[in-house]
Amino acid sequence: MDVVEKFRLKFRISNDLYRCLLCEFFCTGLLVFGGTTTSAQYVLSKGTQGSWINVNLGWGFALVMAVYAGYNISGSHLNPAVSLFLWTMGRLSGVRCILYSIVQILGGFCASFFTWVLYYDALNAYDGGTRMVEGELATAGIFSTYPKAFLSVGGGIADQVIGTAYLCICVCMVTDKRNKIPQHLQPLIIGFIVVQIGICAGMNGYAINTARDLGPRLFTLCAGWGWGTFSYNNYKWFWIPTFCPLVGGVLGAWIYQFFLGI
Amino acid sequence: MDVVEKFRLKFRISNDLYRCLLCEFFCTGLLVFGGTTTSAQYVLSKGTQGSWINVNLGWGFALVMAVYAGYNISGSHLNPAVSLFLWTMGRLSGVRCILYSIVQILGGFCASFFTWVLYYDALNAYDGGTRMVEGELATAGIFSTYPKAFLSVGGGIADQVIGTAYLCICVCMVTDKRNKIPQHLQPLIIGFIVVQIGICAGMNGYAINTARDLGPRLFTLCAGWGWGTFSYNNYKWFWIPTFCPLVGGVLGAWIYQFFLGI
Amino acid sequence: MDVVEKFRLKFRISNDLYRCLLCEFFCTGLLVFGGTTTSAQYVLSKGTQGSWINVNLGWGFALVMAVYAGYNISGSHLNPAVSLFLWTMGRLSGVRCILYSIVQILGGFCASFFTWVLYYDALNAYDGGTRMVEGELATAGIFSTYPKAFLSVGGGIADQVIGTAYLCICVCMVTDKRNKIPQHLQPLIIGFIVVQIGICAGMNGYAINTARDLGPRLFTLCAGWGWGTFSYNNYKWFWIPTFCPLVGGVLGAWIYQFFLGI
Amino acid sequence: MDVVEKFRLKFRISNDLYRCLLCEFFCTGLLVFGGTTTSAQYVLSKGTQGSWINVNLGWGFALVMAVYAGYNISGSHLNPAVSLFLWTMGRLSGVRCILYSIVQILGGFCASFFTWVLYYDALNAYDGGTRMVEGELATAGIFSTYPKAFLSVGGGIADQVIGTAYLCICVCMVTDKRNKIPQHLQPLIIGFIVVQIGICAGMNGYAINTARDLGPRLFTLCAGWGWGTFSYNNYKWFWIPTFCPLVGGVLGAWIYQFFLGI
Repeated sequence: MDVVEKFRLKFRISNDLYRCLLCEFFCTGLLVFGGTTTSAQYVLSKGTQGSWINVNLGWGFALVMAVYAGYNISGSHLNPAVSLFLWTMGRLSGVRCILYSIVQILGGFCASFFTWVLYYDALNAYDGGTRMVEGELATAGIFSTYPKAFLSVGGGIADQVIGTAYLCICVCMVTDKRNKIPQHLQPLIIGFIVVQIGICAGMNGYAINTARDLGPRLFTLCAGWGWGTFSYNNYKWFWIPTFCPLVGGVLGAWIYQFFLGI
Repeated sequence: MDVVEKFRLKFRISNDLYRCLLCEFFCTGLLVFGGTTTSAQYVLSKGTQGSWINVNLGWGFALVMAVYAGYNISGSHLNPAVSLFLWTMGRLSGVRCILYSIVQILGGFCASFFTWVLYYDALNAYDGGTRMVEGELATAGIFSTYPKAFLSVGGGIADQVIGTAYLCICVCMVTDKRNKIPQHLQPLIIGFIVVQIGICAGMNGYAINTARDLGPRLFTLCAGWGWGTFSYNNYKWFWIPTFCPLVGGVLGAWIYQFFLGI
Repeated sequence: MDVVEKFRLKFRISNDLYRCLLCEFFCTGLLVFGGTTTSAQYVLSKGTQGSWINVNLGWGFALVMAVYAGYNISGSHLNPAVSLFLWTMGRLSGVRCILYSIVQILGGFCASFFTWVLYYDALNAYDGGTRMVEGELATAGIFSTYPKAFLSVGGGIADQVIGTAYLCICVCMVTDKRNKIPQHLQPLIIGFIVVQIGICAGMNGYAINTARDLGPRLFTLCAGWGWGTFSYNNYKWFWIPTFCPLVGGVLGAWIYQFFLGI
Repeated sequence: MDVVEKFRLKFRISNDLYRCLLCEFFCTGLLVFGGTTTSAQYVLSKGTQGSWINVNLGWGFALVMAVYAGYNISGSHLNPAVSLFLWTMGRLSGVRCILYSIVQILGGFCASFFTWVLYYDALNAYDGGTRMVEGELATAGIFSTYPKAFLSVGGGIADQVIGTAYLCICVCMVTDKRNKIPQHLQPLIIGFIVVQIGICAGMNGYAINTARDLGPRLFTLCAGWGWGTFSYNNYKWFWIPTFCPLVGGVLGAWIYQFFLGI
């Protein structure tokens, strides 16, 4: 029996709920760390060490790792939209759905801290120490999403709903047992979906995940970017990537059931 | 028995033909949605959030998802050229071949609608509300294909026939049981083929699929781009990506059988 | 029994040698067609529809398809260097090694013809109908390789020998039964090797395959590019990508056996 | 019994330690060769035949090949940080840990020699024969890492520790038997991790491997780049990518055990 086994026996968590919450927290953190560092490198290197395809692959592979890490423990939802549609299907209790969502957002918050540490020198070299939400040298977009100037509120809602619906249609399809995709390949294909969404629907908003957006947004609020993170566009943006993915997720999951499940 | 099971039992479609048509409709829609949104992001972001490799990967992964979604139901042809060559091999009835082709084109039409909604604000920001088929600010190319200026009619025909033949040689090869590629990997490899075709033969025309081209073309006709979508180049283009893939598909499938099937 | 089965029975080739030669011919053709069209799109679109990563992925995926197509028939050598090192290991007869090499080069020749047809209009639009080997508008590099100006003869030999050795070390590793890589994944991983070689050693020469270089070179000689295809750099280049891969292949295969086979 | 079998019988190494050391030496060499040639092509072609995504994919695929090559012999650590965390878990003896690290660094040294041969002409064409560590025409960065100007010592340490921790969290996750990832897919996914780290944390330093950095650094010291390779930034850099990955590796491996192992 090696050191790891002893360690495991000693600290083993017997409570399944605690174990799942710890797992959702850690894996959402892995996803958000891998993703926000990707965005950071893209922005801070001014494109010399990152192009748009890098951003897409970075978020995609970050998800691949995060899903592999926890899919045998909690199922690696990593996204309140996923937890919610599983609840509407009766596959997750309401209490768990809420708790999962909370720790997912917490995970996103903590991961943002490590991204901030890793790129602290680079952030200062880029913006001279003045953290900004808008303008040429804005860096808030590294952590959470801010829309293009032309996007209307209606367009933002449509974007997040359709984007998350597409994500959840594909997630349902990959995990549908009748499609016989081996479990060890599912995280890889789910990662490809996220690469695909970045390529095809990453221009307007690109959040499609409440935890990925709200967690880092709260972090930027605390770490010096100020209220602008929430007041952006007269408070007409921040709630769109927070709530619309939830609607889109449920919609997408049931569209899949309607068209292909039956 | 959970909510999904109950839902499935209630709405179950017992008729195999209806089920397959619904599946071909939905999956071709998934493909065309994933692909045209990719093209939209590439064009509308003026290349800042999309380069040519993104376009190739976007169409490729869109196909991966669309094939996975339906290959256990209808076989996920998603392309009249594929349905047609299966008919020439006696593996699909003539009636099904025609019905499949119609719902595939319909799926392409409906998917274009969602792409149009998702990028409505971005389209207006790009062209100021004037939808154009030709010129600097043309956006019709997001939905269906328009050839390079130098391409002659003969060159266009050769392009579509050779391109679709290459596609169908590879599709036959991947699905050939004697090659022992596990069924759960086939959609992935078919997606790589489409990435490859975009890289190697995407310059002239890039349609190689009647449903992917004609469906969105009909949508642009209705949604404000006008008759130019069909009259482009004095009516010397639109029928090339409509009919030539059918010829190329049959040719490619039988070339495979001739060289490697025997 | 469907149409394909009947067709197969009628035209079945009972002679294993003929079958393998037809397979090597066709699959090398698939590889060279997929690869040279990739190069053509990269050159003729002046980089707007192809960057260096596209070229690498294009050749890589072309090889993936070509290897899948024939690995259950002839083993898909597709490269005289591979046939030769298998002969030195006593796994292929000398006669087969020579015949395979000839049909591989023939396959490369014929595939170049289809690339030429597909891009005939684009070639004329690019060079105005004057096929050139050197200069700003040179297009011979689409088909076969021409070195960078700074490359000496010794550097070219080192490049081809080391590059092909790296390729064959990896090919031996992937196909080594003790590494237990499932046969259906091997073509994919071999394709990744070729992507890798394009990324890491594609700058000097990038041939690493006699059939891929000599076949298309003979085609350009016939199709209007003239003797310059062989006389380039005072006849100090064309034989390097023709013969050096053979040396590198044998060297690499035995290096693998020496370091890891034992 | 073919030629290879005879060769194997004759030269078979019965001592497991020698076999493992030879394997670690050769496979680390494969990794460093594939990686440094990638960097060389990126730098020496001035970006025309390599963008940042090529560099990421090049290092990633180089690792894929190197891991496949040796994971059935020595386990393909290829990185003193990996050997060290396995020692802290009681899965590798201390003597082996030290010997592995030495041959890994040696492998990195020898591989750099072949990179140097392959790009000898290109290096001279680029810098006119004057090997430099700093400045416009610096080429030392092809072999080992040099930080961005803005990076402080603390930032460099944080970068290497966090980066290697992320690597080792993912390596532990992929190789954890309870995650049931088939052994033949593990090298591929570990390669994707390295692609991901290049995309998300490759901007500051990008070493995350003592052997990958120290081996080539020693080579550049000997091959004409001079003491600048170690004295860079007043001796405030070279030891960071040498020692910090060791700390990060152990940290990451135990973080994984703490959050997901239990």
